[in-house]
Amino acid sequence: MTASAESPRRGRGRPAGGGDRAAQILDAARREFAEQGYDGASLRGIARAAGVDPALVHHYYDGKEALFVAAMQLPFNPAEVLPRVFADAGGPDEIAERMVRFVLSIWRDADTRAPFLALLRSATGSETGAAMMRSFVAHALIARVAEQLPPAPDRELRVNLAAAHIIGVMLMRYVVRVEPIASADEEDVIQRLLPAIRGYFCD
Amino acid sequence: MTASAESPRRGRGRPAGGGDRAAQILDAARREFAEQGYDGASLRGIARAAGVDPALVHHYYDGKEALFVAAMQLPFNPAEVLPRVFADAGGPDEIAERMVRFVLSIWRDADTRAPFLALLRSATGSETGAAMMRSFVAHALIARVAEQLPPAPDRELRVNLAAAHIIGVMLMRYVVRVEPIASADEEDVIQRLLPAIRGYFCD
Repeated sequence: MTASAESPRRGRGRPAGGGDRAAQILDAARREFAEQGYDGASLRGIARAAGVDPALVHHYYDGKEALFVAAMQLPFNPAEVLPRVFADAGGPDEIAERMVRFVLSIWRDADTRAPFLALLRSATGSETGAAMMRSFVAHALIARVAEQLPPAPDRELRVNLAAAHIIGVMLMRYVVRVEPIASADEEDVIQRLLPAIRGYFCD
Repeated sequence: MTASAESPRRGRGRPAGGGDRAAQILDAARREFAEQGYDGASLRGIARAAGVDPALVHHYYDGKEALFVAAMQLPFNPAEVLPRVFADAGGPDEIAERMVRFVLSIWRDADTRAPFLALLRSATGSETGAAMMRSFVAHALIARVAEQLPPAPDRELRVNLAAAHIIGVMLMRYVVRVEPIASADEEDVIQRLLPAIRGYFCD
């Protein structure tokens, strides 16, 4: 999971000097995402900034989301992992529980937390950082959870509220480390959080 | 902070002189809170760092919380304002609603949001910033809301979860500005948020 997110695609021949070119592409991607935001950046523009052919970027990365994941060193690609997280879930109650447990499992571990904390810092640190994240959060995360729920015009807003709750808890527990939530038992936190998250998913 | 606040030993009750000392105290307070955290900083240490008599700090500021509020340029002192926010509330349902509406009223306005956003940036930006905030959040905010609720061993944790939810919504709506929550109608957001917050306060 980590390898596929952090390295160029496998199973395809890499040109000589591919490591340098991959690093050039990732550097260019970070600059372009920072300057243009997730929505504004394009694989073509990133290729131009990296001084490589767009075909090479496509060869390494399966689209903008995969390149963003690699550039930000996220420990997984939501496009691949979220469908597995929610596979065969019995209904909104279980979707809610899997979402809560999955996010906790990322944030509890300092190594997997680090890249998400870096994104949170970018997003809160400046409008540029916020713009970089904004539509990645909406499209790669919120929309993917929402499509697990029964169709409803407000399901993105419900998932957004639930996501806001969970990220607020991560912020208090793992970043600011406010008591008593910082030292509370994890299963206790999950059990207290679940009714609120389920309230958004079912009703 | 008027001319009469000047130390008589100086013998010069000039407003500019008082302004300089007040500015020295606030500068020293910001340094000490940043270096020692809210818990570690003391009025005595801040007076020493500012090169003034501790009595002068006490003369200007009614305790560490008031000095923190001034140093961080918060638009109000929670010690004074929260009792008014919750005055004559009918019960936990109403406490929940007043808390939600109060926080929204601060964050919706760019001017009152700015100092809280600055604190959020400090808190997420570094461990030093987190340490600076940690116990201010616990004591000045969470404990003050908790004491509005019926006594229970877990009431601080309940308020902490509710506060985490609300701050997560502020983060998504006003900082990262993720859709759909960024553009959602404020009263709609409040009405959707209330059941979750009330769930923490009542039950």
